[in-house]
Amino acid sequence: MQKVTIELLQAIRRKPISKAELVRLTKYSLAIVTEHTEILLEKNFVREIDRGPSTGGRKPLLLSFNAEAGYIVAIDLESTNVRVGITDLNCNILVSESLDDIDVLAGPTTVLEQVKELVFALLHRVGIESPQIKGIGMGVPGPVEYSVGLPASLSIMRGWDRYPIRQFWSQYFQCPCYVDNNVHTMAIGEQMLDLESKIENLLFLKIGNGIGAGIICKGQIYRGSTDCAGDVGHINMGHDILCYCGNRGCLEAFAGGRAIAARAEEMARNGQSEVLGEIYSKKKKLTLVDVRQAVEVADPVAVELMRECGVAIGNVLAGLVNFFNPSLILIGGGVSQVGDVLLASIRQAVYQRALPLSVRNLVIQYSSLGENAGIVGAAALTVDEIIDNNAFVYTDAH
Amino acid sequence: MQKVTIELLQAIRRKPISKAELVRLTKYSLAIVTEHTEILLEKNFVREIDRGPSTGGRKPLLLSFNAEAGYIVAIDLESTNVRVGITDLNCNILVSESLDDIDVLAGPTTVLEQVKELVFALLHRVGIESPQIKGIGMGVPGPVEYSVGLPASLSIMRGWDRYPIRQFWSQYFQCPCYVDNNVHTMAIGEQMLDLESKIENLLFLKIGNGIGAGIICKGQIYRGSTDCAGDVGHINMGHDILCYCGNRGCLEAFAGGRAIAARAEEMARNGQSEVLGEIYSKKKKLTLVDVRQAVEVADPVAVELMRECGVAIGNVLAGLVNFFNPSLILIGGGVSQVGDVLLASIRQAVYQRALPLSVRNLVIQYSSLGENAGIVGAAALTVDEIIDNNAFVYTDAH
Repeated sequence: MQKVTIELLQAIRRKPISKAELVRLTKYSLAIVTEHTEILLEKNFVREIDRGPSTGGRKPLLLSFNAEAGYIVAIDLESTNVRVGITDLNCNILVSESLDDIDVLAGPTTVLEQVKELVFALLHRVGIESPQIKGIGMGVPGPVEYSVGLPASLSIMRGWDRYPIRQFWSQYFQCPCYVDNNVHTMAIGEQMLDLESKIENLLFLKIGNGIGAGIICKGQIYRGSTDCAGDVGHINMGHDILCYCGNRGCLEAFAGGRAIAARAEEMARNGQSEVLGEIYSKKKKLTLVDVRQAVEVADPVAVELMRECGVAIGNVLAGLVNFFNPSLILIGGGVSQVGDVLLASIRQAVYQRALPLSVRNLVIQYSSLGENAGIVGAAALTVDEIIDNNAFVYTDAH
Repeated sequence: MQKVTIELLQAIRRKPISKAELVRLTKYSLAIVTEHTEILLEKNFVREIDRGPSTGGRKPLLLSFNAEAGYIVAIDLESTNVRVGITDLNCNILVSESLDDIDVLAGPTTVLEQVKELVFALLHRVGIESPQIKGIGMGVPGPVEYSVGLPASLSIMRGWDRYPIRQFWSQYFQCPCYVDNNVHTMAIGEQMLDLESKIENLLFLKIGNGIGAGIICKGQIYRGSTDCAGDVGHINMGHDILCYCGNRGCLEAFAGGRAIAARAEEMARNGQSEVLGEIYSKKKKLTLVDVRQAVEVADPVAVELMRECGVAIGNVLAGLVNFFNPSLILIGGGVSQVGDVLLASIRQAVYQRALPLSVRNLVIQYSSLGENAGIVGAAALTVDEIIDNNAFVYTDAH
């Protein structure tokens, strides 16, 4: 397909649209729009649908993306779990499931075999065959050299350095595969929800064991010069805790999931919190889930701990808001499930510290896709890429 | 002009280029490229030039932008001075001059009259008449609501709030006028120098009395959601000095030009530096120029002061490098003229604190355009806009 055809298909994919609206949106002439949408109709990438009941006169037709022209395998790998979904080309999830017994440190061979088992189980469940899959999208918990899909030198994914993930999937599927840092896919997923609106600049902040941001800039994912943009977990907030990166003062060494659990354990051992102390004396360790439980029963020490984390995160975010001036910040990741106290403290710190003009229209809220953000985004990324790269072939096999 | 014509003209503007290269670069077919370059040749926006001595066979022709189809008035307003240039459409400066007796706080009516006098003096000097001016570009030292060209609520430009600068110029020129924060125009100017290369993501950091950044993202200026992206001077670095913004800890309250002069005065009064003390006892105050002189004679106290500022700026930049992952950071503004000690300390702090992958290809250097960055950028912005907005009309008036 030519560049113009591709651009029109990407516009139609966003929402059903008339030719007149396409002219206005893309600034191509009606003659060019007509010529290229004919090609798309012929190829079956696009269908004509009714606009709904006519209000007199002829019924205008809308062009609509043919989302059933194939399916996508979408994978969201985290350090201790994986979520897999099968979606149509509009990124609607047909079926999805998580595995919680993953250990990313077991290495790519072991982990990818586990993921593959789950992928084929899900395909079987919905009766979709491998040739109907048009693309595979996979998010991983660390930086990826995106153009080749190779994990970059990682701390959290030891043993995966430059492992050829695309090649692994090519053993089973005859379609393109795209691999990206999962904070990027999560940001893409959230934007996917919002394709029709005007939110052009957003940050998706994932607060898990690590802390990272996915950046949508002028409507597109921004990866930076060495594909590691958004690595905000190691921004210096000025404390004395040593981080695994070798520096002191990193945000994630204070407010990441593991750091929170470690501080909660210390508080339990010191007798500062009865609630945490009780759990600790039973389990001899504390996790984020225990902290969450303590917050839920309104243990003041646990609430104060989360408030401190929220303020720390908010102070760093305030600087990024001054710099990037987004209109939306979405907070996701395991730590965000701790509840409203975290969000409230993040907001408080951002609105206090960032410049008034920067936050004039800024909305800060929890991710709306929750645990599905990563797979919706992996699917959206994949559909975008196969269209842009002309790798989109319609088959009637399904 | 149609969208395709505009896109081709923008590509030709970057460097003389053959039709075959245009096909490769823009991904349009040769038929489309030929059709639209014919239009550009006809309109006189583009000329055919020789590729130079042929190496046998026919001499291939290059398409070249007709930079003499008009001229641009480019203005770079700072809080205490203004620089004006007249450029051709390739942003080559024909004539330029600065006025140093500007006080932005005197308000727009007074200041714009001074600037206007200089503009007409320069036009007269090079024999260019007002109808030959195709556009006016003006940078100002603070945030601007770009789409309408109105200064936003400012601290440094009191009295300019929403003043209609465009309307002022429309009294004298029948052409479009674009107004932007001058950190943005400076970043555009630096990128203009580099149109042929691959530097897609760069930061221009201006360290003057205020500290601000211009962001080039995927080859284009990035202004953010309320046009105030890059306002990094108020990022919290954790000190106790009260900033005029009402917060404590702001970078510019520690490392901006006024802050440096104030700290130097204190050191002079305390007898910490003989060199500074001598200047102070004569002048009863110190400016950045005095600090620079002290650094030039290797006064250890002044050198240490600049080193501290460099490290502070570098620590904030390190966080922005983790977030934005640029491949180039350019340092400009009055404070940067203090010399190499500042640049060395900035580099040291960035390379120490930022993630190794983020700085793998990162270059940090002083601005190469120096005092002309703002006017070259204002001209480049203006040419871009008049082409993109179809406001570019060729006249043979010159």
